[in-house]
Amino acid sequence: MLETSKRIKAIVEKMLKENPDSSHDMDHVMRVLNIAKKIAKSENSINMEVLEAATLLHDIGGPKEMNDSSGKTDHAVESARMAKPILEKLDFDEVDIVHIQECIISHRYKTNKRPKTIEAKILFDADKLDSTGAIGIARGFCWVGKNNADIYRRVDINKYVKENMGGKMNGRIQDKSKHNTWIEYNIKTKYLAEKLYTKTAKEICKERLSFTKSYLKRLEKEINGKL
Amino acid sequence: MLETSKRIKAIVEKMLKENPDSSHDMDHVMRVLNIAKKIAKSENSINMEVLEAATLLHDIGGPKEMNDSSGKTDHAVESARMAKPILEKLDFDEVDIVHIQECIISHRYKTNKRPKTIEAKILFDADKLDSTGAIGIARGFCWVGKNNADIYRRVDINKYVKENMGGKMNGRIQDKSKHNTWIEYNIKTKYLAEKLYTKTAKEICKERLSFTKSYLKRLEKEINGKL
Repeated sequence: MLETSKRIKAIVEKMLKENPDSSHDMDHVMRVLNIAKKIAKSENSINMEVLEAATLLHDIGGPKEMNDSSGKTDHAVESARMAKPILEKLDFDEVDIVHIQECIISHRYKTNKRPKTIEAKILFDADKLDSTGAIGIARGFCWVGKNNADIYRRVDINKYVKENMGGKMNGRIQDKSKHNTWIEYNIKTKYLAEKLYTKTAKEICKERLSFTKSYLKRLEKEINGKL
Repeated sequence: MLETSKRIKAIVEKMLKENPDSSHDMDHVMRVLNIAKKIAKSENSINMEVLEAATLLHDIGGPKEMNDSSGKTDHAVESARMAKPILEKLDFDEVDIVHIQECIISHRYKTNKRPKTIEAKILFDADKLDSTGAIGIARGFCWVGKNNADIYRRVDINKYVKENMGGKMNGRIQDKSKHNTWIEYNIKTKYLAEKLYTKTAKEICKERLSFTKSYLKRLEKEINGKL
């Protein structure tokens, strides 16, 4: 990790220490950094200082979004806003600060800004990969436990999306306790590879999703007393 | 399912409807019932009416334990107490009620009463099997998310048990946010087969734990950016 990144890491660690969310803690940030670096190796002319800074700072607005019951705070927008004074204090130049903010704002799928630079694309991909494979399963069930949702149950997807997501597959979940892992996989996770930008991330995604699929198949067998 | 069991199921469903715990909901009860029936097939002279009733009622005291911040309520004892009037109303005879209560009280490892009858042993085993394999992973992470614990981190087990479990491997976890899945597997889950009573449950347990082990190995690789 670069010297500036170590200083940013120490700041972010303090900011996320009291964050009441096992899925978006400092461990998540470090996993995304590990994967971002892995993807970066297969790409040319990466500004590693920008990529590492953006990755470390991408979720600092998370606690603010969580504490806003109105649902209006977007943690990507908030993180970009909060990143500016931190980067200024660390003497980042203006062009890089704007670039880092672009990466942070566009890392979120729901925010209507798509990543344009290669660094933004890598952050987007690395963050999404943390929802796949064994770690995606772990984080998914953390969400289930936190929101008192169901572990696994087949439902009529069209009816569910209409009744609990405002009719849109990428809509906001209205009653979280009605959501479950089977639904999440079938409306979102299994289509993830198509939404990624870099070749390396797409490959990692496909391999990880084949594990997710086999895990869910096994889970269903166990639930029905077949294993 | 027997006719009396259907009536008990309807009662328990209502009782657990508002239970704020994805790991001990009606789905858990039905999974334990599926596995209990599977184990029962390999045993002789099982009183199925007792086994099904005890299984359906084994966690009805769960919400009371969860809502008691003093940590004094034992849901196994509480469930047995609450089961009595329900069974009386359904015309179970006294001998069977006592038997069912014995099964319920002894299903919990921490309660100092070990299962004596074959029906109690099957309930104990079936309940524990729901902590293994793919379903055990799911329920474990629900606990992590609910208690804002860590997803996965290697620690010094002796130091951890001393500092956060009162020095006992089966002690009470003092600060849940310091617990994680690696610790849980290494101090408890991996020894589970030895603690079960029936041959069938031991076999299911071993097969499921080999999956748990391979899942955790993969999880660690992904966390470190190796997969």
